[in-house]
Amino acid sequence: MKLKIVLVEPLYDGNIGSVARAAKNFGFTDLVLVNPPQIGDFGLAMASHAKDVLTRAQSAKSLQEAVAGADLVVGTTGKRTEGDGHHLRLHLRVPALTPKELAEKLEVKDVTVALLFGREDWGLSSEELMACDILVSIPTSEEYPVMNLSHSAAILLYELSRVSSGPVRLADHNTMNILIGRTERLLHEIRYPEHKIEYVMLMLRRVFGRAELTEREANTILGILKRALWRLEAESNTVEGTLEGLEGTETGEK
Amino acid sequence: MKLKIVLVEPLYDGNIGSVARAAKNFGFTDLVLVNPPQIGDFGLAMASHAKDVLTRAQSAKSLQEAVAGADLVVGTTGKRTEGDGHHLRLHLRVPALTPKELAEKLEVKDVTVALLFGREDWGLSSEELMACDILVSIPTSEEYPVMNLSHSAAILLYELSRVSSGPVRLADHNTMNILIGRTERLLHEIRYPEHKIEYVMLMLRRVFGRAELTEREANTILGILKRALWRLEAESNTVEGTLEGLEGTETGEK
Repeated sequence: MKLKIVLVEPLYDGNIGSVARAAKNFGFTDLVLVNPPQIGDFGLAMASHAKDVLTRAQSAKSLQEAVAGADLVVGTTGKRTEGDGHHLRLHLRVPALTPKELAEKLEVKDVTVALLFGREDWGLSSEELMACDILVSIPTSEEYPVMNLSHSAAILLYELSRVSSGPVRLADHNTMNILIGRTERLLHEIRYPEHKIEYVMLMLRRVFGRAELTEREANTILGILKRALWRLEAESNTVEGTLEGLEGTETGEK
Repeated sequence: MKLKIVLVEPLYDGNIGSVARAAKNFGFTDLVLVNPPQIGDFGLAMASHAKDVLTRAQSAKSLQEAVAGADLVVGTTGKRTEGDGHHLRLHLRVPALTPKELAEKLEVKDVTVALLFGREDWGLSSEELMACDILVSIPTSEEYPVMNLSHSAAILLYELSRVSSGPVRLADHNTMNILIGRTERLLHEIRYPEHKIEYVMLMLRRVFGRAELTEREANTILGILKRALWRLEAESNTVEGTLEGLEGTETGEK
């Protein structure tokens, strides 16, 4: 497993320095900062003997730029909305893995992981969470669940430092995006209710993410989808009018 | 399990505040500070919504005062001296449990644990480490093993927050001290080489600590030691001269 630690728009240089130190403590050195603040003396002091990690950190203008090259995008979230009735919000944040479950999932995989940490005040935005393949959440007390950014990082890096790399090659992020795109095309093609598509796609992204598809598995599914789309599009071209006329017959209504 | 978090002579109020926050994040509230510095605005800011934990923290003049009432004293150490040939140093710091192993050991126990964190620069002194029943060490990178104090605390509290309490009552610290004292008396009584006693006693303290003796087990061993001492002392009073005369006969020398 290769790990990119991505801090999304961090506010305080002290936290960035602290994360750099925790990274080096656990043998990680690849830090990416999305629109970071200027790093001053306090940030450097907090990095302590990990100033090299801090000075070699990559700056990115966008999340997309930051996660380029990662096979798996993992978002950290402290907010849990179990029991929240709204489908979209529900799939946005849950189910999240625990750090230990994430470590177990990554065991013996040959994969590049981008681990995203959000802003100190607001975490990751809904849009950023939607771009994640997997979510992870540290189990905290109900009374005070909001952790310090570098504490969250230290705990996750502690768990992930025990993961041993292995030969199992997962489908890369690009393949997964093609898979997601093709699945969405299928939903449109089968006239899945438009207003449900966003939530279903998010749910499927999470399911695919947790399934840890290998490249071969993803390609097989892509082949199935391609064939299904080809049949559907061929049919819809020839029998468009007929299908229109048949709508509603399945339930006997009309 | 009840947990007392003990910071031994911390240098910076920011770290104390950070530890208070991590404590509350994981549902712990019992913080003890041995000779702490004045806590200023920065310390309070780092505590964030855990100012209550910080203001209710107990101050202690000595480690002994801080660990009063604890059944098990656990020391954290980042220094590992495996391979160091000197017996005393060896038993002082190793074998240390990982945070996960410590959590497993404390599962379903009815025990009050004092978890000690040392100074930011020097950690715990040799004397303080010798007073610990168990040692715990976070596995870190060889290249940069020195962690930020509040990061170490966050990781240990994260692991310990998953421990469920149970009915298994361990021997308390007082009983363990009597056990240690009586064992040392036995070593003197059997004329164990004086220069080895300190190291053997430290080793035995670690062994007893890891063995997690129940009150009943400890009392049984105390009974055995008492009886052995009674026999030895009785014999040595009556046959002191005889034994002196016999020394060396076992190996046939004289």
